[in-house]
Amino acid sequence: MIKIAVDAMGSDLGSSVVVTAIQKFLKDYPDVAFIVCGQENELSALNNLERVSICPTTGVMGMEDGALDVMRRKDTSMMKAIEYMANKEVNAVVSAGSTGAFLTAATLKLRLIPGVMRAALVSPFPRQDGQSVTILDIGANNENQPAQLVQFAHMGKVFNQVMNGTKEPKIYLLSNGAEAKKGSPLVKEAHKLLEVEPGLNFKGNLEAREVLSGVADVVVADGYSGNVLLKATEGVASMMNGMIKTAFKTNVLTKIGYIFAKKGFGDFKARMDYKKYGGAMLLGVNGVVVKGHGNSDDYAFYNAIRVAYTLAKQDIVTALGKEMAHGEGL
Amino acid sequence: MIKIAVDAMGSDLGSSVVVTAIQKFLKDYPDVAFIVCGQENELSALNNLERVSICPTTGVMGMEDGALDVMRRKDTSMMKAIEYMANKEVNAVVSAGSTGAFLTAATLKLRLIPGVMRAALVSPFPRQDGQSVTILDIGANNENQPAQLVQFAHMGKVFNQVMNGTKEPKIYLLSNGAEAKKGSPLVKEAHKLLEVEPGLNFKGNLEAREVLSGVADVVVADGYSGNVLLKATEGVASMMNGMIKTAFKTNVLTKIGYIFAKKGFGDFKARMDYKKYGGAMLLGVNGVVVKGHGNSDDYAFYNAIRVAYTLAKQDIVTALGKEMAHGEGL
Repeated sequence: MIKIAVDAMGSDLGSSVVVTAIQKFLKDYPDVAFIVCGQENELSALNNLERVSICPTTGVMGMEDGALDVMRRKDTSMMKAIEYMANKEVNAVVSAGSTGAFLTAATLKLRLIPGVMRAALVSPFPRQDGQSVTILDIGANNENQPAQLVQFAHMGKVFNQVMNGTKEPKIYLLSNGAEAKKGSPLVKEAHKLLEVEPGLNFKGNLEAREVLSGVADVVVADGYSGNVLLKATEGVASMMNGMIKTAFKTNVLTKIGYIFAKKGFGDFKARMDYKKYGGAMLLGVNGVVVKGHGNSDDYAFYNAIRVAYTLAKQDIVTALGKEMAHGEGL
Repeated sequence: MIKIAVDAMGSDLGSSVVVTAIQKFLKDYPDVAFIVCGQENELSALNNLERVSICPTTGVMGMEDGALDVMRRKDTSMMKAIEYMANKEVNAVVSAGSTGAFLTAATLKLRLIPGVMRAALVSPFPRQDGQSVTILDIGANNENQPAQLVQFAHMGKVFNQVMNGTKEPKIYLLSNGAEAKKGSPLVKEAHKLLEVEPGLNFKGNLEAREVLSGVADVVVADGYSGNVLLKATEGVASMMNGMIKTAFKTNVLTKIGYIFAKKGFGDFKARMDYKKYGGAMLLGVNGVVVKGHGNSDDYAFYNAIRVAYTLAKQDIVTALGKEMAHGEGL
């Protein structure tokens, strides 16, 4: 049985999307159980379900609450959910609440896997060929050192092996040019370290334009650049999705066109749907910690749970521990 | 008469796209004259035109040639074109050759406008509302200091005023969160300086996801992050354009759908067409220096010339000099 603690109060759209996601997940996966933290009156639909226990809480972390607020607010659904993970009463924890608060509390409460210098936020992104590429760090850090990027490469490798089943993932370093000499001072230094690092299938630098092209299985970036990459990608994808809708609504003819073209665009939408990827995992801490998007609907939150379930079932934390202990040079 | 020096040899697609672009531009703009630098036998179509003079050169900068190579290669079409600008024999210079080589040579030959610490590469990007947003630096620098970002804000303001005619452009700082306290150490420091800088309509931090949304007229970033933003945007746009084509080609019905929907998607394509924006300008040097995309076709190169023509005609260099001299705090 995989046990998952859920912070039911974090989502922008309220606890009802979390409740719906859990109900559906229970039906689809017979070997999962939930501890749901949140305001009792909002969780009544889950009350008498067999594999659910409710952990009633009163406090809610605001989306604007940050690193400093979270540790003071011991009564919040977020802190309670993290504590279950810290006490090893569950295999994973999921929240769609404030990113800063969730990552800080998870790191402080769970602590880092021995040898890990910094935790990194990782997510799969849709690739042009229908597969996915693992990108990290997409925002756990504001500033990184070269040796930390080398560790991100190891952690990204393990994540890709566990999620995608790739044996030797092709690892690239995000830069402003493909040549080894290109990049910020940080990237240039990290490149040198990665070239001589054993145990990594390191392929060199990659420009942001090639990240989704299909050449890379793992892309390593510092947390600030990785966050720019993530959000630029989301922003353009969402803008173009909007423009496609507008294009089909231009006039009567284009509306008829949509009826015919629907099938092709169904596949398209499915492939570019960030909700499918559901959650980003905080890699490097002693536990499976999954952050759902703040504006997750029930489908997106369901997928965040699925990410947590998959990673917990495959015991990614043990795999990461082994990689960090036996990966030479770490 | 606006005189423009053109490096005819830099484009990936060869000199013929440059020749075609110049022929068309001469027809459309009666007050422009060209000095075209390149291999004579490839430029014969321009030979006897009234407002064109040929500057025959033998050397060609390779796309892989960088900062160190360019100053040694005095016989190249790129260096010759830049020299015309340095000697003030032209009002602008355009090249689609190696970015590193072109920016280095232009900076060394033209020198910076008094008071400017670092030149920045700037380009308009298509915004959701059909207007454009000015983003800089998109790749002239690998590393920047906070005070340099403040200067980029001033230069971006002038560029936006000249290109878009906005009176008081809304200026934002790229960050990983909208709150003032969010960002890399560089961004946090730059934010503090921008908040108290006179003469700027500074609005705060902006996440990469909002850059094209229409809220910002100018977005300031360090050269490395700006380059990630530029290339991620291009990469996703090009991937989605490819997917739209594939979607319409799925089967006979979707192909019929395209015939009906064509009109809507024509507007769409025009709006997301990066070729329309043609070129990026190197802001902060003593001259109008425009870099066309390496894989420019004649339409894109035509637009790079149009950018150079517009900026030279509006005398952006004088406007920048005034902003840097009178902008308090610089």
